[in-house]
Parts: sequence; structure tokens; C-alpha cells
Amino acid sequence: MTEDHLAFYQGRKVMITGGLGFIGSNLARRLVGLGADVLLVDSLIPDYGSNLFNIDGIEDRVHVNVADVRQQSTMNYLVKDCEVIFNLAGQVSHIDSMRDPYADLEINCRGQLTLLEACRYNNPGTKVVYAGTRQVYGRPDSLPVTELHLVRPTDVNGINKAAGEYYHLVYNNVFGIRACSLRLTNVYGPRQLIKHDRQGFIAWFVRLAIEGQTIQIYGDGSQRRDFVFVDDAVDAFVRAGADDVCNGEVFNVGGSEPMSHRDLSALLVEIAGSGRVEYIPWPPEKKAIDIGDFYADSSKFTVDTGWTPSVALRDGLERTVAFYRRHWDRYVDPPGRAGGRA
Amino acid sequence: MTEDHLAFYQGRKVMITGGLGFIGSNLARRLVGLGADVLLVDSLIPDYGSNLFNIDGIEDRVHVNVADVRQQSTMNYLVKDCEVIFNLAGQVSHIDSMRDPYADLEINCRGQLTLLEACRYNNPGTKVVYAGTRQVYGRPDSLPVTELHLVRPTDVNGINKAAGEYYHLVYNNVFGIRACSLRLTNVYGPRQLIKHDRQGFIAWFVRLAIEGQTIQIYGDGSQRRDFVFVDDAVDAFVRAGADDVCNGEVFNVGGSEPMSHRDLSALLVEIAGSGRVEYIPWPPEKKAIDIGDFYADSSKFTVDTGWTPSVALRDGLERTVAFYRRHWDRYVDPPGRAGGRA
Repeated sequence: MTEDHLAFYQGRKVMITGGLGFIGSNLARRLVGLGADVLLVDSLIPDYGSNLFNIDGIEDRVHVNVADVRQQSTMNYLVKDCEVIFNLAGQVSHIDSMRDPYADLEINCRGQLTLLEACRYNNPGTKVVYAGTRQVYGRPDSLPVTELHLVRPTDVNGINKAAGEYYHLVYNNVFGIRACSLRLTNVYGPRQLIKHDRQGFIAWFVRLAIEGQTIQIYGDGSQRRDFVFVDDAVDAFVRAGADDVCNGEVFNVGGSEPMSHRDLSALLVEIAGSGRVEYIPWPPEKKAIDIGDFYADSSKFTVDTGWTPSVALRDGLERTVAFYRRHWDRYVDPPGRAGGRA
Repeated sequence: MTEDHLAFYQGRKVMITGGLGFIGSNLARRLVGLGADVLLVDSLIPDYGSNLFNIDGIEDRVHVNVADVRQQSTMNYLVKDCEVIFNLAGQVSHIDSMRDPYADLEINCRGQLTLLEACRYNNPGTKVVYAGTRQVYGRPDSLPVTELHLVRPTDVNGINKAAGEYYHLVYNNVFGIRACSLRLTNVYGPRQLIKHDRQGFIAWFVRLAIEGQTIQIYGDGSQRRDFVFVDDAVDAFVRAGADDVCNGEVFNVGGSEPMSHRDLSALLVEIAGSGRVEYIPWPPEKKAIDIGDFYADSSKFTVDTGWTPSVALRDGLERTVAFYRRHWDRYVDPPGRAGGRA
């Protein structure tokens, strides 16, 4: 284990793909603070989550390169000299992946291969930390879920994210590009997309609560999940990028407090002081890819890197609600242009 | 379980993608014999394994449509009215997948999505049997390997084949297209590609033995594998296609007698009455993606469908050697055009 994973980044050149997105931009803010030379690569595809306001206040301390990770010659150039690459670019909507599986394939499979091929031929000494997902496990056989659980995705997005992860491990094992994957559970916090509801329910619930609208819970809301505040997720990336013990491995990165949708939404309404909760039957297309209860055992990552989640759910939600209230017009389209329920 | 999985095919319209290839053409011969109305779809991509001679003698009893499974409008049309689709089209070379991962991605991921999307919108009542591979398991943790073993591919081909398999299961679960996957181990027998050595070692060894050449074994040849004669693999597809108990499931389809490379090559030289064996160090690019000992536990498939491998290795090899001796010029390029070791 690196003695000081924070000092590690001083003066180092790092790249974040998807760097204008939710986790990427929060990670950028942290790395800038640690003295890293930060390059953000982002394609700014509408509706995917990138937002130039996400780097408000650090825009003069990062390099932004608008590019698509699927563009091989671009990536061949950009990866040069990067000592650590945080690979967060991706299509993250499960529902979108079932409507257009090809777009998901292009971004989550081809895009990962493009980055890894760029490293293979132009910077094989680099380190890559991939943003994986607990979605690869599908409906769990037992709880909490460890990394020994079968990979059995329930939607196209989960399949392609699994393939993207496997590519990283194979390039680690075969070509010596040091790579690992963090299988994130439900990450929430400031700078997440809230323009539409297709990128996870928690950000959408935050928006509805702030707007004083009705949060619709499918079924009885008893399904339990774990939640990671984005600062904790960022800390996980920072540790994994600095620590070669992670190479060739996958790690769960989950929260410490599993909570039901019912309790979560009640807590959120309480914190926001607005909004209300309604229970409705499952829409068939969502039920078909739902995974029921899920919470992760992250002890492997804790043992290897010392990481633990430090932000309690109440605290994290308070900070999230406060952030969006402060910067509402940066994350929600003006009236008449709202994305609404898709 | 269908009472008579053989009678099931009488008069039924079936499609085989990759139908001019090794397993596809052997399956076509069987299905024609069972009275099925057989459509073979094949792109005839050079070096991938398709061979028009593979349907010698049945060419007037099958429909051949030369097309690429990646062509959506073509597949939209072809899947109509097919009651069972045997989905065997694919890129099967592990080595090729590490040289050109994009080609493997296109064929083994996009091609599977194209077929499944065609079914989703044009023939959702069909049944699809996918040719999976034991390669998805990677290096096994324990032997024999059951379907509960982690999926952990060691090369890009294994990753993309895993994704292709997962797509089938998701389309089964979400869209109701009845689908299953047979994870085949080393299939061997007549009509396999022997022009080059990048599609599995056993066919290449058969060629070398027949030619009186030297079979090079990597390392000490102690790694054990199981082998399935193609007629047994065909029987597995025929049973899976007729039996709805298989829907949404994956099944190992392996041989009954694990054997070391050392013993296999000795047996082959004995049967051929020609060739010899030499032991050489592992080439690094092959060692990096080798999986060591591997043999499958196929009892799940046996319990569900009654399938068991019936052709002993000696018998299968004798039939294979005899076939290639009889039809040598149909499978090996004339002198001066040989593919040789890649």
C-alpha cells in the first residue's frame, strides 16, 4: 500500500475520461487540490451527464479536451505521458441501453477498447482505473455481494460494462497495462445529471423533492440498496490510482448503510422539506431489469487500500440538496425545456 | 423435456447462422436428415471457417443465404418464420482477437445484437440456441468446471463471447425470446478449418499428423482438456433447440474423457500412422492467454436434456483423420498457398 496516496498525485499528469461528468468532475476537483496536472477528456454528448458548470471554479486549473473516446487517433495522442488514467467515460442508462443497444455497445465496449489500445501502443506503462458497476452482478444470490458473486447482468448496459471491465483485466494480464476496476454501487451527490430520470433514481428523487413534486416508488419500496456519496467514490479512485496492489483486480465500492427505497425517499423529503412519496405498480420495462435488494461487501477494497465510506447518508443528502438549490439553473433546463419522465 | 426431440424438427423452418462453418454445417446435415427446412446464413469471410464443400451432398436440400449477421435489414428479413435459430456465426480465434479486438467486437458482440434485435422486432416467438464457449471461464479455480464457476475470460474473444451469451439471456428474460447458450469445450471432427492454426489446436494437429509433420506441443504437454466430437455437439444443439427447459440457461457441453495434450498428440500420431511430436517452450503471446487444465462438468445439460457424449476420442479421431484424407484438397490450399503457422 502506498504510504501516502494523496502526496502521490503532486505534479503527476493524470487523465479523466468522462471528466465533465458527475464523478469525473468531482474527481477532477480533488486531484487539482492534490496538485495533479489534470486532463479532462469528454465528448459532451447531450443527456449523458457532462456539464461544463461541473468544473466551475477549477476551469483554469485543468485542461479540457473535448473528444470522443472512440476516436482512436485522438486517444493515441492524448494518453501519452499520462501516469494515471481514470476511465469514467460511459453510457450509464440501463433503460437507454435496452432501447438502443448499439449506442451502448459503441461507447461501453468499443470506447474502452480504443482507450486500452491507445495505451497498449502509446503508453503501456500507464495505470488505468475503470469505473465499473455493481450492475454486472444482476439479481444477487446472497447479500451482501462480494466479488466472488457470479457476473450475470440483467440488461445490455450491465453486459457491456462487464465487457469493458474484462478488457481492462485482460490488458493488465496480457499487455502489462496496470488496470483495475471499481464496481460502484449507487453513487449520489452534487454534479449528477438531473435533467432526466434515466441515469439512476436517486438524483431524480432529489430533483423531485426539491421541486415539491411527487416521488413515485415502484412496488412497496422495500428493496434495499447501498449508496455512496460522491466524495467517497472519489476517494476510492484516488486510492486505486496510487496503489499497485489493485492491479488486475476488481473491487466493490459500496456504502455502509443499506436502506430501502421507502426509507430513503422519506429521509429525502424530510431533508428537503418538500416533495411527497407515492407508491405505484412496477412498469413492466423497469421490472424486467430490476435487481431487487442489493448491497455490496466492500471489505476487499478496504483491506487492500484502507478505503472506507465516510459520509453518512443523511449528511450526503443534505449536501446534495443544498448544492442543487444553490445551482438549480445549471442543472435543470428552463421551464418548457424540461426533460421530464422519458 | 420434449418426448422426441428428433421428431420435433420434421417440417420445421430453422436457421443456422455460420451455417457453412464447422459445427453449423454438421448441424445442417443432421437437421436435413430430420426433415427440417434448413436456412444457412453465412458471410463466407475468408479464414473464419466457412467452406461450401461442407454442405457437399446436401446442397440441394438446404437454402443458402450469403449474408453478414451484422446487417440489420438483412437479418430482420431472414429471421421471419424461423422457428428455431441456431446462432453459430462468430469469430473464434483467440489470437486474432488480441491482434484486432475491433473485428472480434463487431462480429461477436454487434453481430449477436443484430440477430437478437431482428428477432425482437420481427419474430419474438422464435427460439435461439447460441454457441457459447468454455473460454468464458478463463483459468479454472477448480475442476471439473460447472456453470457456477466465475466468468473470467483471459482474452478479448472470451470477453466478447461472454457478452454475446449474456445478450441472449437478457433478451430471453426481458423480451421473451426463448434463448439459451451451450458453452462448448474443444469441438473436433470433420469439416473444421485446417488451413491455418488459429482456430484451435486439435484440427491443426490432425493436419500436421496427416502431412507427416511435427506437432509442436507447448511446455510439457501436461495440460488436460476435454474434447467433444462434432456429432455429439450437434446432438446438443438439436436437443437444446427442441426443449424449452433450456430457455434462459447456460450449459456446459464437454467431453467425457479429459486427456493431456501429450496423450492426445500421441494417440493422434498412432491413429494417423504419421507425424511426430516435439516439445517446445511456450510462445509468450500464447502463454499469456492459455488457461491450463480445463475440463467441464456437463451434468446440468445431461440432467435437463438427456444428452451425453457418445463418441469416444479414439473413434472420433479415426473418423476425423479418415475424412480429411478423403477430402484433403477441399480443406488445404494447394502447395505454395498454404496458410502455415501464423
